[in-house]
Amino acid sequence: MSVGLSEPSMVLAVNGVQLASIASGIKTNGNDDLVLIYFDAGSSCAATFTKNAFCAAPVMVARTHLQQSPPRAFLINSGNANAGTGKQGLNDAHQCCDWLAENLSCRSVEVLPFSTGVIGEVLPMEKLHTGIIPLIEQLAVDNWLVAAHGIMTTDTIAKVVSAQLKIGGETITLTGMAKGSGMIKPDMATMLCFIATDATVAPEILQQYLSRAVENSFNAITVDGDTSTNDACMLVATGKTAIQVDDASDPHGYFFQALEKVCITLAQAIIRDGEGATKFVTIDIEQANSKQEAKIVAYTIAHSPLVKTALFASDPNWGRILAAVGRSGLPDFNIAEVNIFLGEVCIVRTGERDDQYTEERGQRVMNQAEITIRVELGRGNERATIWTTDLSHDYVTINAEYRT
Amino acid sequence: MSVGLSEPSMVLAVNGVQLASIASGIKTNGNDDLVLIYFDAGSSCAATFTKNAFCAAPVMVARTHLQQSPPRAFLINSGNANAGTGKQGLNDAHQCCDWLAENLSCRSVEVLPFSTGVIGEVLPMEKLHTGIIPLIEQLAVDNWLVAAHGIMTTDTIAKVVSAQLKIGGETITLTGMAKGSGMIKPDMATMLCFIATDATVAPEILQQYLSRAVENSFNAITVDGDTSTNDACMLVATGKTAIQVDDASDPHGYFFQALEKVCITLAQAIIRDGEGATKFVTIDIEQANSKQEAKIVAYTIAHSPLVKTALFASDPNWGRILAAVGRSGLPDFNIAEVNIFLGEVCIVRTGERDDQYTEERGQRVMNQAEITIRVELGRGNERATIWTTDLSHDYVTINAEYRT
Repeated sequence: MSVGLSEPSMVLAVNGVQLASIASGIKTNGNDDLVLIYFDAGSSCAATFTKNAFCAAPVMVARTHLQQSPPRAFLINSGNANAGTGKQGLNDAHQCCDWLAENLSCRSVEVLPFSTGVIGEVLPMEKLHTGIIPLIEQLAVDNWLVAAHGIMTTDTIAKVVSAQLKIGGETITLTGMAKGSGMIKPDMATMLCFIATDATVAPEILQQYLSRAVENSFNAITVDGDTSTNDACMLVATGKTAIQVDDASDPHGYFFQALEKVCITLAQAIIRDGEGATKFVTIDIEQANSKQEAKIVAYTIAHSPLVKTALFASDPNWGRILAAVGRSGLPDFNIAEVNIFLGEVCIVRTGERDDQYTEERGQRVMNQAEITIRVELGRGNERATIWTTDLSHDYVTINAEYRT
Repeated sequence: MSVGLSEPSMVLAVNGVQLASIASGIKTNGNDDLVLIYFDAGSSCAATFTKNAFCAAPVMVARTHLQQSPPRAFLINSGNANAGTGKQGLNDAHQCCDWLAENLSCRSVEVLPFSTGVIGEVLPMEKLHTGIIPLIEQLAVDNWLVAAHGIMTTDTIAKVVSAQLKIGGETITLTGMAKGSGMIKPDMATMLCFIATDATVAPEILQQYLSRAVENSFNAITVDGDTSTNDACMLVATGKTAIQVDDASDPHGYFFQALEKVCITLAQAIIRDGEGATKFVTIDIEQANSKQEAKIVAYTIAHSPLVKTALFASDPNWGRILAAVGRSGLPDFNIAEVNIFLGEVCIVRTGERDDQYTEERGQRVMNQAEITIRVELGRGNERATIWTTDLSHDYVTINAEYRT
């Protein structure tokens, strides 16, 4: 079940990017599980990786390779996270890069490995080895949607989005795909995101754009607060369009805005497809002293099991939201300045139940599948928005019964 | 349902303390809902209150009164938290103190009010008023157990414990009671704890003892991470035994140890009776740089919905525990130093699955109702222990369906 998601309709190829997806047998159900993204020479790359101290072997290898060379290929397997696999896992990740590099006539450090799936089992290397050549044979520019299917684990729907913009009369295309459903699915770890553009962007500028865009998208969502061992978000610019994108050529930031929109759409798609989700919840925190404290309050609400179960029950339980705001730990926090809104309905005014509030008005908002909780802190002018889901019986079922 | 709890057997009266409990009609099911604890003159008192910025009217009144005088009486109602009730709530809490003071011939500031129950509804003052005289008539020294029943909301079992020790040949008694099930039950807020002793302890020393004991007991438990608007823990020493308890008369800290044991037993009882709990889980973090960082790691594990659902499923899912340790945000954290144990079974050694580990060995531990997760961080010599529950379908049901 997902909230307000449908199969992507318009997916645009990106000049300089080819993709392929096959079923190598890592997944026992016969679904695609091995994906290759191949970039023309001269591409630049930006990346963000999980901050979890326990990070998987492919993350370590990808980070190291990226420091040595711009990448030519991403090799992604689903069904096995190659996490918690120690030295063996590192050797396997390197071996995959070597095999692919031999057959693509590139260097091994130009290949970045990504894995998503069960933690603590070693990669079935024979299946991966056998898959390399058929995978390369499948490469094509219009394979974004099949590749998005190939990286899925417990996702119920593929997540791909395209955007276009013009700079200096030239059309620039961005297309991205993502997978993710829980931050860590039982043992099915990982949020992964791969975005490509035909724009020409210097690596350091590309990294700035990506870091900013991730802050307001993938770093602004939570299903359960658990950070995966394999999370990564990659952005590659193939440089097939002539104009150099930077602050001079794009003073209004159209490229960044298009990138951020792609990231937000994919991040929201992960939440909409969140484990057991029956609600898509936007949490807007306003009048904060800093963006950071706005995010602290937002995440305190989003991670409260009591708020999440109330959302699941469509229960306009304003006391739970107010209590979560109150315990978020802001210094010198005066609850009497706080206003809280469910959609357009004010539920708390200056720290107390609003005079005009009725259960019926709150109930009408809570009955919807998409709900906005907005909090005015009365402390300053900064704000933050995050997205989350409810906590349902299906969440417990999915995560409790995965291995039983 | 609770894990390993039974009705208290031996409850000792405390010289200088009388208690009473009646059904005033606040609870619609006819159960007791109004409790009085009355102390002889000359008692000293220590207290800890919720740190939630959104705290209830009785908490504000109790804090203020405590600054003005040692208390003679605690008036506790269950079924209504008098929280989120604004000025009306403050007036009502003051009024209750006035009524009781008139009939007990004490000053209003010598009465501390406590409320637990639904948030956002005003107290039914007529019922409280009518209850005052019958309540006073019930006062007796051996009413601890009935009083423990009277303060319950969603608790399934009364929580009372006694301890005795000898200092200088004199027997000192401590008896305490607590209520609490979720940190905030749907709208049934509050953990409350009331402990009394016949010891003679100076107020500032009593406060030191209580603060230390709370740190290792009530501040070391979590059901869902939600801090209530009404939490309070009170300790009263009636001074009926002659010897002055302090570091000189009690150099080995026997009094503190007895107090801490009472607090830990009551804190654990709250967890054992936690909402939907099917497991009682001890989390020991060892080899930390500080007690604080040990607690951070412990709470990151305890609050992980993925760890909690694995516990519910009796699934020895070591990857989820390791991932929670990894994302706890310690600086310069090297996962390769980490060992993790389920009971006596090593599941992770130096950051990887232990060579000797088998699913069968992990499963045997996980099948038990009481489970210890122990983590060696390999960073230092400090440690912390906390207690928590699993995340079950019943937790979702209790918290989602309370008002539907």
